[in-house]
Amino acid sequence: MSLIVQKFGGSSVANAERVMNVANIITETYKQGNNVIVVVSAQGDTTDDLIEKAKEINPNPSRREMDMLLSSGEQISIALLAMAIEKLGFPVISLLGWQAGFQTNSTYGSARIKKINTDRLKNEIGNNKIVIVAGFQGICKYDDITTLGRGGSDSSAVAIAAAMHADRCQIFTDVEGVYTADPRKVQNATKLDEITYDEMLELATLGAQVLNNRSVEIAKKYNVELEVLSSLTRAPGTIVKEVTDMEKMYIRGVTKDTNVTRISIIAVPDVPGIAYKIFSKLASKNISVDIILQSIGRDGTKDITFTVASDHTDEAVDLLKNYDLLKNSTISCDTDVAKISVVGAGMESHPGTAATMFEALYGVDINIQMISTSEIKISVLINRAEADRAVSAVHAAFFPEN
Amino acid sequence: MSLIVQKFGGSSVANAERVMNVANIITETYKQGNNVIVVVSAQGDTTDDLIEKAKEINPNPSRREMDMLLSSGEQISIALLAMAIEKLGFPVISLLGWQAGFQTNSTYGSARIKKINTDRLKNEIGNNKIVIVAGFQGICKYDDITTLGRGGSDSSAVAIAAAMHADRCQIFTDVEGVYTADPRKVQNATKLDEITYDEMLELATLGAQVLNNRSVEIAKKYNVELEVLSSLTRAPGTIVKEVTDMEKMYIRGVTKDTNVTRISIIAVPDVPGIAYKIFSKLASKNISVDIILQSIGRDGTKDITFTVASDHTDEAVDLLKNYDLLKNSTISCDTDVAKISVVGAGMESHPGTAATMFEALYGVDINIQMISTSEIKISVLINRAEADRAVSAVHAAFFPEN
Repeated sequence: MSLIVQKFGGSSVANAERVMNVANIITETYKQGNNVIVVVSAQGDTTDDLIEKAKEINPNPSRREMDMLLSSGEQISIALLAMAIEKLGFPVISLLGWQAGFQTNSTYGSARIKKINTDRLKNEIGNNKIVIVAGFQGICKYDDITTLGRGGSDSSAVAIAAAMHADRCQIFTDVEGVYTADPRKVQNATKLDEITYDEMLELATLGAQVLNNRSVEIAKKYNVELEVLSSLTRAPGTIVKEVTDMEKMYIRGVTKDTNVTRISIIAVPDVPGIAYKIFSKLASKNISVDIILQSIGRDGTKDITFTVASDHTDEAVDLLKNYDLLKNSTISCDTDVAKISVVGAGMESHPGTAATMFEALYGVDINIQMISTSEIKISVLINRAEADRAVSAVHAAFFPEN
Repeated sequence: MSLIVQKFGGSSVANAERVMNVANIITETYKQGNNVIVVVSAQGDTTDDLIEKAKEINPNPSRREMDMLLSSGEQISIALLAMAIEKLGFPVISLLGWQAGFQTNSTYGSARIKKINTDRLKNEIGNNKIVIVAGFQGICKYDDITTLGRGGSDSSAVAIAAAMHADRCQIFTDVEGVYTADPRKVQNATKLDEITYDEMLELATLGAQVLNNRSVEIAKKYNVELEVLSSLTRAPGTIVKEVTDMEKMYIRGVTKDTNVTRISIIAVPDVPGIAYKIFSKLASKNISVDIILQSIGRDGTKDITFTVASDHTDEAVDLLKNYDLLKNSTISCDTDVAKISVVGAGMESHPGTAATMFEALYGVDINIQMISTSEIKISVLINRAEADRAVSAVHAAFFPEN
């Protein structure tokens, strides 16, 4: 008998019909002799509707009360899903985050899971119940409800799979798996059968649509085998695991990220430690920096350019403009950019990957503004308007038509 | 410094504007130097909407999952109300039933409060916070969420007031207090300044609109002074307490109850203990019987007529039809009846109250089917179509126009 953890997102349970569909998937798995723990998100637009309700009353509520509000969304969906399974005649119980033993830190709004106390989960599974757990939420040491932030239900599912030593964690979504590029944009995009944790992490912007990054980190850490698959079809999905068969394909995918802004600091004093000071200042506010470019010093100053996620732009610019050390520098930013990446653990042993990518972009006359490379990824920053064209060209270079 | 418990029903927090209005009432009380604990119900029709959602998926869900579902309604309203108070700049925290220490039995859907562990409430009040508590809900020994049943938020408020030794418990509603009759139906109805717990209990059908009966029982048991008042005006309401100044008014009100059915058992064997057996059978199913009339025995049989709440009609009739002892009797029921009552602790010392009531009904040509009296109440059963006319006539007899 296996233990399967299944996670269903908000669109999979958006209405009564879809809730019944999900109930059928769950009970089919149960009927095959598996124990099943299900993690579910809030229905459809519930979370957005609740945020709207809050903003109407207070545009700037405390995160603690926001978590109190938002966690009600999953409470509704677990109860409804449990009722659907009751209707199909199977033993079931729904559990809130705290009832399922999710202990988090006190960072309301984006809490981290510290531990799962599995006593009750084990107890209910021991009673042969299908257990429906509210994703996205936990409880902190003050006995307050916390939420894990957007996409947190994926993390909930993977964390339960790790804590309960589940045989597999299935992440159901509205696409059939992970693709070599966005299938809505790139004609020749194909579904991957397997992918490694590291590749999945680098495919973040593709993955964001199907799998939250933090959940992949947890899966990697505890070696939880993930499957990304569709709740609408019964087709096999993409397996995410430590090692995959590398022979067939050395590039896993081409991604586009438009949630990126380029920030330039012109005329930074050219003194030792200046880069450290600037980036540790940004890090102290939890602002992640991606590609960094530094010019060679001239006239005692240099220029530093880097990218951040667009939603951190204002905060980052404010921080820098008010930074004493930079009082003689000029801060500018450009949101009209996109980051195109090729990802694949096989590229290390395939020299010329970068050349192939740059050639493809040159072939369609797209200018590269910045370049960044890692062991399994090459990223370039280009003009946002050319992003889709760039993805298609690069994808075509690595995945020629069959 | 006083501790005031304030309770606001669902209509008082139905939308953003009303939530802000309630936040103003609360913070005004706090600004006057009081500690304030607030109990709040789910917004407007939230509970009905959630029930609708459930029925769409499963017309017969378990009560345990129904409680999981419904308790989300108060979770939303406490968070929104706390955000409104944050916006006004006051220290506030919202607490779910279990966070506020509400321990109940495991009768999902209509749980009874067993105990309130006041540690956290005291702690938050000690930090000078306004505490917003989710009404209607608690937690049972299995760590499952329970609800107290409809009107349960009143009980939550009174129970907190008792456990915290509050100086007053204010029940805010959409009427200004308790009236001598339904002000929408009876022109001359006047608001009562004071009323005793016992009178309030007898005025159940008037009170049901403003105050849940179980909450009055708890208030009486722990001597919690209640005030029923409007959240829309700032007028003083009606105080409910143990002893009131009786001199001015010996009748407190005239009520109409149309949630009543008359059941007749014709030809019951005239043997000792038969009434005991019938009514203990009904009691075993939690069916409360009100007025009872028994005919004098004849031919070895007698007739027994009694009233029950209309929603218990089918269950009661089924029970009696399947009762061996009554296999030769005929069961009939009449739902076309109403119960009119006059209530007042002063009537004991005022002989002729019954006569005044009967005369008033005779004066408008209304026939009395059954009569029941207690120390502080006289009730008559009449034809339902004549109920409003009966209330007006009886009210006019006891409360002549000023």
